[in-house]
Amino acid sequence: METVKVIEIAGTVSFSIAGAFAAMEKRLDLFGIFIVAFVAALGGGTLRDVLIGDLPVKWMLDMNYGLIVLLSTIAALLFTRVILNYHKILLLFDSIGLGFFTLVGIQTGITLGFSSITCIGLGTMTACFGGVIRDILLNNIPLIFEKEIYATTCITGGVLFFMLRYLEVYQPYNEIICLLVIVLFRLLAVKYDWQLPSLWNQRNL
Amino acid sequence: METVKVIEIAGTVSFSIAGAFAAMEKRLDLFGIFIVAFVAALGGGTLRDVLIGDLPVKWMLDMNYGLIVLLSTIAALLFTRVILNYHKILLLFDSIGLGFFTLVGIQTGITLGFSSITCIGLGTMTACFGGVIRDILLNNIPLIFEKEIYATTCITGGVLFFMLRYLEVYQPYNEIICLLVIVLFRLLAVKYDWQLPSLWNQRNL
Amino acid sequence: METVKVIEIAGTVSFSIAGAFAAMEKRLDLFGIFIVAFVAALGGGTLRDVLIGDLPVKWMLDMNYGLIVLLSTIAALLFTRVILNYHKILLLFDSIGLGFFTLVGIQTGITLGFSSITCIGLGTMTACFGGVIRDILLNNIPLIFEKEIYATTCITGGVLFFMLRYLEVYQPYNEIICLLVIVLFRLLAVKYDWQLPSLWNQRNL
Repeated sequence: METVKVIEIAGTVSFSIAGAFAAMEKRLDLFGIFIVAFVAALGGGTLRDVLIGDLPVKWMLDMNYGLIVLLSTIAALLFTRVILNYHKILLLFDSIGLGFFTLVGIQTGITLGFSSITCIGLGTMTACFGGVIRDILLNNIPLIFEKEIYATTCITGGVLFFMLRYLEVYQPYNEIICLLVIVLFRLLAVKYDWQLPSLWNQRNL
Repeated sequence: METVKVIEIAGTVSFSIAGAFAAMEKRLDLFGIFIVAFVAALGGGTLRDVLIGDLPVKWMLDMNYGLIVLLSTIAALLFTRVILNYHKILLLFDSIGLGFFTLVGIQTGITLGFSSITCIGLGTMTACFGGVIRDILLNNIPLIFEKEIYATTCITGGVLFFMLRYLEVYQPYNEIICLLVIVLFRLLAVKYDWQLPSLWNQRNL
Repeated sequence: METVKVIEIAGTVSFSIAGAFAAMEKRLDLFGIFIVAFVAALGGGTLRDVLIGDLPVKWMLDMNYGLIVLLSTIAALLFTRVILNYHKILLLFDSIGLGFFTLVGIQTGITLGFSSITCIGLGTMTACFGGVIRDILLNNIPLIFEKEIYATTCITGGVLFFMLRYLEVYQPYNEIICLLVIVLFRLLAVKYDWQLPSLWNQRNL
């Protein structure tokens, strides 16, 4: 439970900042930036909790979630003076959030006694769908389905987690390993433009 | 409870008409217009009820919601002959709906014993997210995050409500004041192109 | 119950294949294709179950749903070599899924004792909103509200179902008739470009 709490906070901070930057790129007003940061950070977990029926969603009862988003948004606003290259910072925070939230989703599934496949699905949903909702709200094409093997990264991390769990690796180590693998995997995927084996080149469709 | 009922009906009528006009502008067919009106009117409240876990959503059990949307849509269709300027009428109904639904969301939160911040959030969600879903369905850029300080208007009205409530103003008066403030605030914001203090001009990003 | 099961599987297969083809047209990667197929097939039913509060959604507890989508996606990938004309195949599968899912939604509503109007609404939602979410994710304009009287087809099928039910037609016959009517109605609507009586031509808006 404690571990879940810590990685949930770290993921919320990362995705709030990534969401705030994405909203700033579209030059939204101050409240717009906060709302997009909120949706980016808490949207994936909210969708997860709605689908498993864990209602009301947690951020309605616990003000700390909103507070973390607010403080992260303010931090993102203050650091914009320093930050010259938005895209790289956005990518880094996005990757860290991706790793944290995949683990949160998996933990939620394990607590509910779901199968490992459903747990990996919940991890992917928690990690990816805040960004999908963010992209839809900002009228961007959702990143997840096109490039940068976004969802694939989460699924890879999730499969690794259950392999290490099967091998009875001490859980905090397992989580740190999976987190690092997800972040590295995503950064390398973007840097070297990794893509899943595509059908289109071979077939000339 | 009675007050909630009345403002809920008035808000549903306003947002149905606003939704029907938005759909007519995109020249949807008759059922398309009805569905967009339905989503615009009941989408925000539906999202609110899903997130607080008040299910099944009310319009499934109570046919009156659908009936109000249907009658409002028919009214919107009949009045199009008279109405020459869509945008101003759309704006007026949208502003009235915005005020009513902010109050409905706040009342829902108070009934559930939520904190005033969560109540203001629920009011903003109830008022704004029907329009967001409407815009997404019509493939428009959601208005809420860009101009016209849409969400800000609801938050301002919500903060005012809890300030007057703290001062123990008689609730129906409080609601009428907040409703008028929200409608006026929004109309003035559009007329004079009010925007939140923007970071972009000062920093030349 | 058994009937519901069979038509649910057939609908899932049809919509998965239609979703996979739509994703292939946008040249998504392999996991992207699977996820869009999943959303297209199970999104409408998921929205229905969320709104009626039947949680956790079924595909989290029953792996067979995900498996059916996976196998359908693989089938869609393998058949692309053979299929030259995407649009017609996509349309056929989409129409069959439309019919099946309308019936699933109606059955769900009947089981819960909802009114016939709510049942028709649930059928239309189950059938149409997977496609709406698919279109939003692929950044397409949702088909439902514009052409091809998509939702109208489901509503027509639903009204027919309750008329035949009122006349005490044997239910499996009723379902087969409604399914065929929906599929034919949609295919003819696309072929002959049927549209609802439009207000725009007469009024020169």
